[in-house]
Amino acid sequence: MILFRCDYAEGAQPEILKRLAETNFEQLDGYGSDPYTESAKRKILEACACPGGEVHFLVGGTQTNATVIAALLRDYEGAVAVQTGHINVHEAGAVEYTGHKVMTLPQHQGKMDADELEAFLAASDADVNKDHMVWPGLVYISLPTEYGTIYSRAELAGLQAVAHKYGLPLFIDGARLGYALASPACDYTLQDLKDLCDVFYIGGTKVGALCGEAVVFPNKAPKHFFTTVKQHGALLAKGRLLGVQFDTLFTDKLYGRIAANAIDRAQDMIAVLKEKGIPFFLETPTNQQFVILENKQLEALSAQVGFDIWEPFDADHTVVRFATSWATTPEQIQRLREMLSVFISQ
Amino acid sequence: MILFRCDYAEGAQPEILKRLAETNFEQLDGYGSDPYTESAKRKILEACACPGGEVHFLVGGTQTNATVIAALLRDYEGAVAVQTGHINVHEAGAVEYTGHKVMTLPQHQGKMDADELEAFLAASDADVNKDHMVWPGLVYISLPTEYGTIYSRAELAGLQAVAHKYGLPLFIDGARLGYALASPACDYTLQDLKDLCDVFYIGGTKVGALCGEAVVFPNKAPKHFFTTVKQHGALLAKGRLLGVQFDTLFTDKLYGRIAANAIDRAQDMIAVLKEKGIPFFLETPTNQQFVILENKQLEALSAQVGFDIWEPFDADHTVVRFATSWATTPEQIQRLREMLSVFISQ
Amino acid sequence: MILFRCDYAEGAQPEILKRLAETNFEQLDGYGSDPYTESAKRKILEACACPGGEVHFLVGGTQTNATVIAALLRDYEGAVAVQTGHINVHEAGAVEYTGHKVMTLPQHQGKMDADELEAFLAASDADVNKDHMVWPGLVYISLPTEYGTIYSRAELAGLQAVAHKYGLPLFIDGARLGYALASPACDYTLQDLKDLCDVFYIGGTKVGALCGEAVVFPNKAPKHFFTTVKQHGALLAKGRLLGVQFDTLFTDKLYGRIAANAIDRAQDMIAVLKEKGIPFFLETPTNQQFVILENKQLEALSAQVGFDIWEPFDADHTVVRFATSWATTPEQIQRLREMLSVFISQ
Amino acid sequence: MILFRCDYAEGAQPEILKRLAETNFEQLDGYGSDPYTESAKRKILEACACPGGEVHFLVGGTQTNATVIAALLRDYEGAVAVQTGHINVHEAGAVEYTGHKVMTLPQHQGKMDADELEAFLAASDADVNKDHMVWPGLVYISLPTEYGTIYSRAELAGLQAVAHKYGLPLFIDGARLGYALASPACDYTLQDLKDLCDVFYIGGTKVGALCGEAVVFPNKAPKHFFTTVKQHGALLAKGRLLGVQFDTLFTDKLYGRIAANAIDRAQDMIAVLKEKGIPFFLETPTNQQFVILENKQLEALSAQVGFDIWEPFDADHTVVRFATSWATTPEQIQRLREMLSVFISQ
Repeated sequence: MILFRCDYAEGAQPEILKRLAETNFEQLDGYGSDPYTESAKRKILEACACPGGEVHFLVGGTQTNATVIAALLRDYEGAVAVQTGHINVHEAGAVEYTGHKVMTLPQHQGKMDADELEAFLAASDADVNKDHMVWPGLVYISLPTEYGTIYSRAELAGLQAVAHKYGLPLFIDGARLGYALASPACDYTLQDLKDLCDVFYIGGTKVGALCGEAVVFPNKAPKHFFTTVKQHGALLAKGRLLGVQFDTLFTDKLYGRIAANAIDRAQDMIAVLKEKGIPFFLETPTNQQFVILENKQLEALSAQVGFDIWEPFDADHTVVRFATSWATTPEQIQRLREMLSVFISQ
Repeated sequence: MILFRCDYAEGAQPEILKRLAETNFEQLDGYGSDPYTESAKRKILEACACPGGEVHFLVGGTQTNATVIAALLRDYEGAVAVQTGHINVHEAGAVEYTGHKVMTLPQHQGKMDADELEAFLAASDADVNKDHMVWPGLVYISLPTEYGTIYSRAELAGLQAVAHKYGLPLFIDGARLGYALASPACDYTLQDLKDLCDVFYIGGTKVGALCGEAVVFPNKAPKHFFTTVKQHGALLAKGRLLGVQFDTLFTDKLYGRIAANAIDRAQDMIAVLKEKGIPFFLETPTNQQFVILENKQLEALSAQVGFDIWEPFDADHTVVRFATSWATTPEQIQRLREMLSVFISQ
Repeated sequence: MILFRCDYAEGAQPEILKRLAETNFEQLDGYGSDPYTESAKRKILEACACPGGEVHFLVGGTQTNATVIAALLRDYEGAVAVQTGHINVHEAGAVEYTGHKVMTLPQHQGKMDADELEAFLAASDADVNKDHMVWPGLVYISLPTEYGTIYSRAELAGLQAVAHKYGLPLFIDGARLGYALASPACDYTLQDLKDLCDVFYIGGTKVGALCGEAVVFPNKAPKHFFTTVKQHGALLAKGRLLGVQFDTLFTDKLYGRIAANAIDRAQDMIAVLKEKGIPFFLETPTNQQFVILENKQLEALSAQVGFDIWEPFDADHTVVRFATSWATTPEQIQRLREMLSVFISQ
Repeated sequence: MILFRCDYAEGAQPEILKRLAETNFEQLDGYGSDPYTESAKRKILEACACPGGEVHFLVGGTQTNATVIAALLRDYEGAVAVQTGHINVHEAGAVEYTGHKVMTLPQHQGKMDADELEAFLAASDADVNKDHMVWPGLVYISLPTEYGTIYSRAELAGLQAVAHKYGLPLFIDGARLGYALASPACDYTLQDLKDLCDVFYIGGTKVGALCGEAVVFPNKAPKHFFTTVKQHGALLAKGRLLGVQFDTLFTDKLYGRIAANAIDRAQDMIAVLKEKGIPFFLETPTNQQFVILENKQLEALSAQVGFDIWEPFDADHTVVRFATSWATTPEQIQRLREMLSVFISQ
């Protein structure tokens, strides 16, 4: 059985485990006051070309979204997201649990449209009842989106311009950020993000770490953000666990290199899926690909290959997701090819 | 420089790192649906002698306290704790952030007194204004306490009896549970806890793991507790990180064995401190010891030895905490002895 | 200037003011422990034909929605409503502020469709990721809806059947309940509601009271609901203010009689609007009517007659709402007729 | 039976009812956009000598405390209060429900001591763990206190100076503010409060209104405070109910005059209690008096006279509270005198 179900099926990139082992018996202060955490922060700020910024390490994605959003919003504000946004669908209401509404816009292959955002914010602003309503407080997008698509530089700039016009920060959920930046279709780099949004995070969990997300505030973090992190239960006593991992990921561009592997394997996988004549629901420039399988074939194939059931397509077909990762090997793609040959008749 | 500042200065017990490495490239399902997590749960329930119970793995202590407490309480209820209880002091208001009051009782070397609990609950119950007040909803204690002390079996039974008399569950914060159970002064075992409280957790972060706390519900967890964990941002995509660690800790009684090391080293350390004539503020049966240092000596010593400033004793003296851990070596105790000889004049 | 802007433009039905004055110097216990509150509860339960139920008086609609919903839901649950539902749009995120997501369905002239509810709940239930998502916890509808429409008995029964099939209570926001029940189009009575939903409230603010909403639990209120009301800041020290008002409204069927006036005047108003050839956007069986005005005429008319701007219709026209109330007089309708003659050319 | 149980046993000062009746059929805009609300705000700002300030009307005390505190605090902050502070004891955890800890200091006849506040804030500031703790975010006091005592001008200035030194606003809960200001012992006026605190409210419910509290921000209210009020369910559709009441209370100094009646009657009552030889637990300069009754006499007396059981004094005696109000008559004091003669043997 091989899994293309997600990009967190394996443990850690081996260099990370090695560094954890090497530093294991060093006695270090807790809660991120250790030199590895400091070093990781410095390297990340350098990689992001914002030496005056701030980095905070949190443990997981839902936690990071809820913590950052709660820190940026006042009680009367909500987060604007597309309907398929992770915070709106798959985080068990973690944002609402902190007291904030998720205000939704339509999605286009997972993306938010700047014109629709403008129309929404303009209408909010013009609404005679606006004092009786939740105030839009920030704009949330994910990069890549839930559908594996990425925003162009112009699209990001457009969203940010609209957000700023209405006084809102733009927050990028980068749980899979590496896979966006490693895509040949991406026309910007990690260094550009500081100018294209107001806060973003660099996902570790899905890009080679055991756990961990690095929140980057290109300028300053909200006041007492450390305490906010603690209050959200997101502060590790052994901060080194995150520090060592991100220090490793941002040494010799490891993060970018392993993300690139996922993209290369995704391209191989696309070729295999096409070779087998499997229709695409959505071909993306990142590590997630959405294809349409006949239900009977799906069942048979799923005994040998793990993939994600996305949504029904019609009575006889289903949209499924195949994802590669930093860990995917050419051999696994080859094995997928063989299995498709056996189970998917054209 | 050696650190006796806390019990989370080192990384993980080496067997844990070894197992993480060995299983690293196995492709596993996420969110705790992997066989290591399953195995860890089974072993823990066995070790706790409650095969019909439920185990959930969370990442850190503050998070675990807030999540369990919020799951157990209704909106109109609060958690009863002693004033020095971790949830009342050092968790950045995480419990209040979920909407619940922490209702406090006096502490006695960190412990709650059953008679005082009874008096408090009786008074609450008798208060003519009780419908205008927060209802006590659970009793929270930590074991060992913030002061390294432990409850006797009779004390736990007494607290539970009072709690149950008023319909409240007793919740034990076991961030350092191993160090209580490993103490010769402890007159009960892990297997007894299922009868002495209603929910407890087995701390990993401070007893050999990189991170992780295992919440044990001797019977059933609150409904949809998995979703509650997710909502609190406490669910790891790579659940294996917790599963493998606890599976290792509960194989061949590793958890108990490494906890015992901390207790043995603490006994050695007590002997050294006494040998050097350092007065105790509080000598405890677990891994934390509280002594009184002269401020000048304290300063000199602190250049070579890390310890925790607890509180001022008088104008010229300070209470400090020395903690051992699963990782403390006889050599480190010997080194402490040498440093004390140099810096502490009797 | 006459106002048809809303149904809360006047103060109280005069009998209410008279009773407040008559009882003003009686010394009464606070927080609803007075005989008027008791009497009001008894009369309401009788009027609702559920003598074993519970009534609680709260002050306003948003407050009542947030308090009832928070009392019924567990932390992991959300409230299902249509997109135009008051809780989703015009309550400043009060429900989310208590930690709960509002989960939305399409609206049909303000109403929820039972089949769409069924499809939504079935899909939630079938979702493989449901443990990562907010659990639907109750169904919220308003009666009449935001668009002045009412559910038929069959529609309510259908919604309740679906809700119950999935274990959810059906909650009716009755801020304008009187106007639904007084409509000739309504095929059920106040006495039927106990069987058609699980909790509802009888709006006072918009039907003759100065303030106040009577929440009716046909069976039992959630545990410690009194404390929940207090915690939400919804408990009046002078509970008599609500008690006397509702006692008056439910003496000699006053509530029903004054609600009927709004319906009678609405019928008169519909006739006048039709006579003047004003196109309807939505003609409803209750006290709110939605018509389409030319923007220029709208402006002129609005100097003499108050009405509510609802939404743009096209570049040159706007949907506006005219509402009657318990206080609307035939003379006011006649005056509207005159003003329409002056300002609206056909 | 006469009640001295509280200061909200009667309805409204008759002039208020009269004005409500006189204006009852005026058609007014909702949510406080009516001329009476505007007028009331203007008169209050004038009475408070802060014409550039802002006034907001809310419905009740608990609601006002929770709303103002939530508006002033960031998520990581708590409210500092004395242990007997209303928000800490008798508001069903409403402040914690909004996510904020109530941080307590000792009380001295209900009052907070500036030196103790200073010591607390200094210790918080110096705590090496402060980033792991709730940050003090505002100072809450009540005036008069729960024990009917009042702060001197010097005491208020002292508290404010300490609060400001640490960057915190001072918030005065004035649910009974009139009774403090009307006391001969009070060495400041309503006009002074703008300089002695940062926000306060003028209680209506306990000083002659049916309901209502007027929050005064001497400068500006927190951003979007109107929306915050709505979100807390504290905004009345018929804002006139509050506007007319406060407009009346602040016409011809009615508020001050009726408050003075309570103080005059309290002085009469003190004389009567002393005449009957009843020992005082606490004699105060405002409308609440605390005396010690023998339990047997208490029982007998309570059949004829309503008073509030405060707390046990010893096995045979109880502390009880007698309160006068704006409505208390000399005849009622005389009646109390007679009843004491009958039931209390000296």
